[in-house]
Amino acid sequence: MKPNLILFAAATMAASPFATGQTTEPVNDWKPATSNQKGKEYPKVNSEGRVRSRIVAPGAQSVLLDIGAVKYPLTKGEDGAWTGDSGPQDEGFHYYQMNVDGAQVPDPNSLYFYGASRWGSGIEIPAKDEDFYALKNVPHGELREIYYFSKTSNSNRHAFVYTPPQYGKDPSQRFPVLYLQHGMGENETGWGNQGRTPLIMDNLIAEGKTKPFIIVMENGLDVGPPRPPEPKPADAAAPQPPAAGTPAPGGGPGGRRFNFDAFQKILIDDLIPYVDANYLTLSDQPNRAMAGLSMGGMQTRQIAPANLDKFSHIGIFSGGSIAPADVKDMEDFKNKVKLVFVSFGGRERGAAGAKTNAEALKEAGINSHYYESPLTAHEWQSWRRSVYQLAPLLFKN
Amino acid sequence: MKPNLILFAAATMAASPFATGQTTEPVNDWKPATSNQKGKEYPKVNSEGRVRSRIVAPGAQSVLLDIGAVKYPLTKGEDGAWTGDSGPQDEGFHYYQMNVDGAQVPDPNSLYFYGASRWGSGIEIPAKDEDFYALKNVPHGELREIYYFSKTSNSNRHAFVYTPPQYGKDPSQRFPVLYLQHGMGENETGWGNQGRTPLIMDNLIAEGKTKPFIIVMENGLDVGPPRPPEPKPADAAAPQPPAAGTPAPGGGPGGRRFNFDAFQKILIDDLIPYVDANYLTLSDQPNRAMAGLSMGGMQTRQIAPANLDKFSHIGIFSGGSIAPADVKDMEDFKNKVKLVFVSFGGRERGAAGAKTNAEALKEAGINSHYYESPLTAHEWQSWRRSVYQLAPLLFKN
Repeated sequence: MKPNLILFAAATMAASPFATGQTTEPVNDWKPATSNQKGKEYPKVNSEGRVRSRIVAPGAQSVLLDIGAVKYPLTKGEDGAWTGDSGPQDEGFHYYQMNVDGAQVPDPNSLYFYGASRWGSGIEIPAKDEDFYALKNVPHGELREIYYFSKTSNSNRHAFVYTPPQYGKDPSQRFPVLYLQHGMGENETGWGNQGRTPLIMDNLIAEGKTKPFIIVMENGLDVGPPRPPEPKPADAAAPQPPAAGTPAPGGGPGGRRFNFDAFQKILIDDLIPYVDANYLTLSDQPNRAMAGLSMGGMQTRQIAPANLDKFSHIGIFSGGSIAPADVKDMEDFKNKVKLVFVSFGGRERGAAGAKTNAEALKEAGINSHYYESPLTAHEWQSWRRSVYQLAPLLFKN
Repeated sequence: MKPNLILFAAATMAASPFATGQTTEPVNDWKPATSNQKGKEYPKVNSEGRVRSRIVAPGAQSVLLDIGAVKYPLTKGEDGAWTGDSGPQDEGFHYYQMNVDGAQVPDPNSLYFYGASRWGSGIEIPAKDEDFYALKNVPHGELREIYYFSKTSNSNRHAFVYTPPQYGKDPSQRFPVLYLQHGMGENETGWGNQGRTPLIMDNLIAEGKTKPFIIVMENGLDVGPPRPPEPKPADAAAPQPPAAGTPAPGGGPGGRRFNFDAFQKILIDDLIPYVDANYLTLSDQPNRAMAGLSMGGMQTRQIAPANLDKFSHIGIFSGGSIAPADVKDMEDFKNKVKLVFVSFGGRERGAAGAKTNAEALKEAGINSHYYESPLTAHEWQSWRRSVYQLAPLLFKN
C-alpha cells in the first residue's frame, strides 16, 4: 500500500466500522490461512480478504492486530482469548504483527518471514490467480542455501541459489542465470520464501512456458557500512520508489540518495565469479540477467546498465523505470540489452509513468515490456506476478 | 532438561533469588546473543549462561521470560521497556518464549526455530567448544530445500539435503548418505538450523576429520494420521526416551507407544529411492547410515535394525540404546552392522544404562561407540556434539 493510500486508509478506518468492531457482518466463509503454523486454526481469512485473529492473553488490557498500516482492536472473550477482524486486504502476502498492551510481537500462530526489517508474521490472502505459485506434483528444483567468501566484504556471505529440476542430470547441460534482488527492509530469504519463486519456476518449467535457468538471491543491503536508513515496519517493502520515469540515478524517496556501489562490487567481483565457478552456468553476457523489486529494482536500474558486458536482460519491479533519456549510448544499449522488463502494482503511483517510459523505450528500438499487476500495490503479489511474467521473456536469444 | 530436573528446578527457582529479581549480582559481561535478529542488542548473555531479556511493553502488567521450564519476571523501566535475567543455562541452544500479560509469544528480538511443536524463539548460550560449529572461511557445502512426491503419503514432502563442498565438482564421484532425524515436536528444519549440521560437516571436512557424505533430513512426525500426542512446549525436544537399555521396541515414555511404520514406509519406499535416483550417492548398504535424536533415535533404533539390507551404520542420540538382548540374530547383525553409535547428555537419566549396553554390545563383537556430552541434558548441544563425534566414525569400511 503506498504512503498516501496508507494515510487515507488510516483516516477513513478510524471512523469506519472496521476499526471499532464492525457493524456490518463479514462474509462467514472463514478458513485458516495457509501461512499459519501447522495445526493452527487462526488467523483465518475470508473471501473478502479480511483477517480474523485470535490470541490468548488473559491478563491483557488491549490487543491489536496491526496489518496494512492499520491497527484493529481485538475483543476479549470469556476464555481469555482475544479475537477480531481486519478490513479487506489485497490478494496475496502481507506482513503483520500483534500488539499486546503495547508490546509489538509476532503472532504465535503464523509462520515467520523477513521483511519490514524484522523476522515476523506474514499472512496469505487467497488470490484468484494463486495457482501459478501453488505447490504441485511436478518436478521440483532445489533452493540451495550457500555461504561463499567475499574478498570485498572480507566475510562469508549468505545467499540462495535456485536450480531447476533439470539441473545436473546431464552435467554437460548449462543454464543461464538471473540475479534477483529483494527490497529494502528485506533480505536474501524473501524471494525463496514469501516470493514463492521456486514454485513459480517449477510450475512454469513443467508447463514448458519458460527456459529453465538458475536464480541467485543475495543480500543487497547488508554490504557493510554505511547503510541506508531503515524504514519503519509496514506492510510493504519500503521505500516507495520515486515516481517512475524521473528518478535521479541512485535517488531515493524524500531526497535520500542510495549508494549501491558496495553491493555492485560484491556482485560483480565476488558473487558472479563464484557462481560461474561453482554452478553449471552459461557465463556469457547473453545468458545473464538482473532483476529486483523496489530497492532491488533501483539496484538493477543502476548496476545492469553500467555493466552491459555482464548483463543482457533487465527487470525492474516497483523500482522505477528506464526512459530513453536515461540511456547514455542508445546504440550500445540496443546492441547489448535483449530485454527491459518494468512492472508496477496497479495501485502504485509509479505505474502510469513507467508505462509511458516503457513505450518510449520500445519506440527507441528496445525490446521493452511493461506489466501492471491488477489491484495490487507495493507488495509481494505484484512481485510474484512480475517474476511469473518476466521468466518466459528471458534468454530467448 | 529432563522432566524430574524441570520439576526440581521449578520448585527451587520459585524460592530462589533468580525468580524474584536476583539479590546476587550477575557477572557484568553481557553480550548480544548470536541468535538475535540482526542489529538487536537484546537478549544478552553473560559468562554464567544467564539470559538478559528486554521487551518494550508500556501497557503491560506482567512480563515473563520463559526459558528452561522456568518463568522469570521482568521489571518495567521508565521507558516502558521490561528487563530481567534468567538463571544460568546450559551451554548451547535453548528454546524460549516471552509471556506478556498471559500471552505466550515469540521474542521479537530473536531468530526463530522450530521445536517444542512451534516456530518460536531460540537463544545461543556461548559454549567452550563452539568452534566446531562456527561459520569459518572454509569450503562450504550446500543445504538444499527439496520437495519430492511420496506415493505412500500421496503428497509432496519437504526435506533438506546437505551436500558436501566436493559434491558435483567431479560428476563421477559419488558419496555415502546419512539419514538424520529430528526429535518429537521438531521437524525437518532442526538439524540444518539450530543443529548447525552443515557448518559442523564443513569444518570436519576442511580439517580432514571425516569422509565427505550426503545428509538427508526428513520430517519423521508429519506422516499422516494417526500421530503420536504432541508434547507441551519446553526447552528440550520431548519426549524423554525411556531409561536406556530397557525400552520396549517402539515404547514411549509413560507407557505411550509410538508407531513408526508410516515413516518407515516413506523412508524405505519413497525417500531413499528418490535420493539414490537424484543425487550422486553410493547406494549400497555399506554406504548408508541412519541416525536421529530423541524420537529420531527411537525411529533409528526401530527402522535400521529391521532393514539391515539398507543400513550399515546406526546412530542413536538421547533416544535409547541397543543391548545384546535386543538383537534378534547376532551373527547377521555382526555381519551387516559396521557401527552402533549411542550418545546421551551427561545430565540425562539414560546415560549410565546406555553406556553399559554399549559396552556389552562391544563385548558381543559389534563396533560399538558410546559418547556422553559433558554438562548437557536433553538439548541441542548434546546433539551437535553427537553429530560431531559420529561423523568421523562413519563409512570407514
